[in-house]
Amino acid sequence: MEPGSRIESALDRAVAYAEAPGAPPLLAEAMRYAVFPGGHRIRPRLCLSVARACGDDDPVAADSAAAAIELLHCASLVHDDLPCFDDAPTRRQKDTVHVAYGTPIAVLTGDALIVLAFETLARGAWRHPRRLVRLVSLLGRAAGSPMGIAAGQAWESEAHVDLSAYQQAKTGALFAAATVAGAAAAGAEPEPWRRLGEALGEAYQVADDLRDVACRQEEIGKPAGRDATLGRPNAAALLGTGGALDRLARLTREAVAAVPDCPGADRLTAEIEAQARLFLPASLRPVSA
Amino acid sequence: MEPGSRIESALDRAVAYAEAPGAPPLLAEAMRYAVFPGGHRIRPRLCLSVARACGDDDPVAADSAAAAIELLHCASLVHDDLPCFDDAPTRRQKDTVHVAYGTPIAVLTGDALIVLAFETLARGAWRHPRRLVRLVSLLGRAAGSPMGIAAGQAWESEAHVDLSAYQQAKTGALFAAATVAGAAAAGAEPEPWRRLGEALGEAYQVADDLRDVACRQEEIGKPAGRDATLGRPNAAALLGTGGALDRLARLTREAVAAVPDCPGADRLTAEIEAQARLFLPASLRPVSA
Repeated sequence: MEPGSRIESALDRAVAYAEAPGAPPLLAEAMRYAVFPGGHRIRPRLCLSVARACGDDDPVAADSAAAAIELLHCASLVHDDLPCFDDAPTRRQKDTVHVAYGTPIAVLTGDALIVLAFETLARGAWRHPRRLVRLVSLLGRAAGSPMGIAAGQAWESEAHVDLSAYQQAKTGALFAAATVAGAAAAGAEPEPWRRLGEALGEAYQVADDLRDVACRQEEIGKPAGRDATLGRPNAAALLGTGGALDRLARLTREAVAAVPDCPGADRLTAEIEAQARLFLPASLRPVSA
Repeated sequence: MEPGSRIESALDRAVAYAEAPGAPPLLAEAMRYAVFPGGHRIRPRLCLSVARACGDDDPVAADSAAAAIELLHCASLVHDDLPCFDDAPTRRQKDTVHVAYGTPIAVLTGDALIVLAFETLARGAWRHPRRLVRLVSLLGRAAGSPMGIAAGQAWESEAHVDLSAYQQAKTGALFAAATVAGAAAAGAEPEPWRRLGEALGEAYQVADDLRDVACRQEEIGKPAGRDATLGRPNAAALLGTGGALDRLARLTREAVAAVPDCPGADRLTAEIEAQARLFLPASLRPVSA
């Protein structure tokens, strides 16, 4: 099965558990609404790419790791969009969860998606319980405190922000989780894969800053210019569009250089370059050589 | 070590991970504030009691399961107290987390505590990875959708409430998790222990309803009469104080009768009866025979 189909099908199975008979209907509906239709599924694709480069000897475990990472990502989007944070009206070309279902259900949707991520790992990793120990730890590190997504978001409540800790936690942590979890799901040592994820996370952050500054709302599916409105740091505002595009290209090369020696390295490199191009909307993509 | 000390020490170790260098200071502080000082730690005590009745051959695993359950409980209290739900000003005789740290940090505190619960399981269960598969699944079931705490809370957003599903999910699920996880952490079959937890959860719900109706704020550490204010069902309002006390006694007997045959059954029964007495504040406790 092609990676995109593997991911959608793993996510569908995961969400179906949360919708089982007895579930409160609005919560179940909001959870599916928060996960489907998705964006480019960049993080789970990266996870599967690394798992394949490491042999992918247990595709069920790799699929569950990929799905769990995307569920954590969706959870963080739902909570980031809440009125007490970004108060965002739209996301992925539709109303945000709190606009569609109300703030209480949006808070619970995020909570339940976080829980579902870990349940999904446990359901997928039963053949290799030792890998589950690693996967739960790796995804926990990426999602919580001191250096996961929740910590990243919490820096926005601090008077003095550690900018690098902020960006690494808010964006980098889940990209790093995607590469290390892909390796762990395939039974490989995870840590050699961390730098690849971190570099891609930094690249994605620069691309997201570019989208925010340079694109119209219709193209990116959420309001443009939010960083300026919310007083947040933005690489494209600091470096200019050209400077930010250069930085993006440099980070992508750094990511490729960080791929550990493995049988699937060439194919993985090609996939990373293709994925990194998708970070940007069409209007900002450099013309291929 | 005595169970109370085991629990406090396991919780302290767990929270210390989230406070490690690099953590955003307010989030780290709020997480500790949400967990300490605790209430009676009824759920983790129950978890350890069951683990001991099952042999407690891996106390590190049992401690981590107990701590994880309490972390999920604390997370749910922080989110339940938010302005969009109960808008509660006080909890455990002090300001609620959102009053002390603001709503954004309170949302993230709940998120990070949920994540920490699963990380804590993984850190404690490395000696027995197969038990981790069960523990993650059991705690996930208790916390998420369709029948965990988040689902319980979500019933409050439905026009037509399934009252039994609501109470079982909101209160019963975590009590059931305490007994099944205690058994699983000790390597025993978990499901025979579920009914004990469910009956105690129902008993606790009745006791909580009694506290809400019959006690003053100073005695219970949170505002009294909230159920009437918020239009929520309450057993003491429905059955009267005497009727609710009778029901509480019946459910406690039912719980004791549900204890599976095991070497530690007598001691466990005594512990359950002692714990169930603590469900009620002193002014409502029946005089001992």
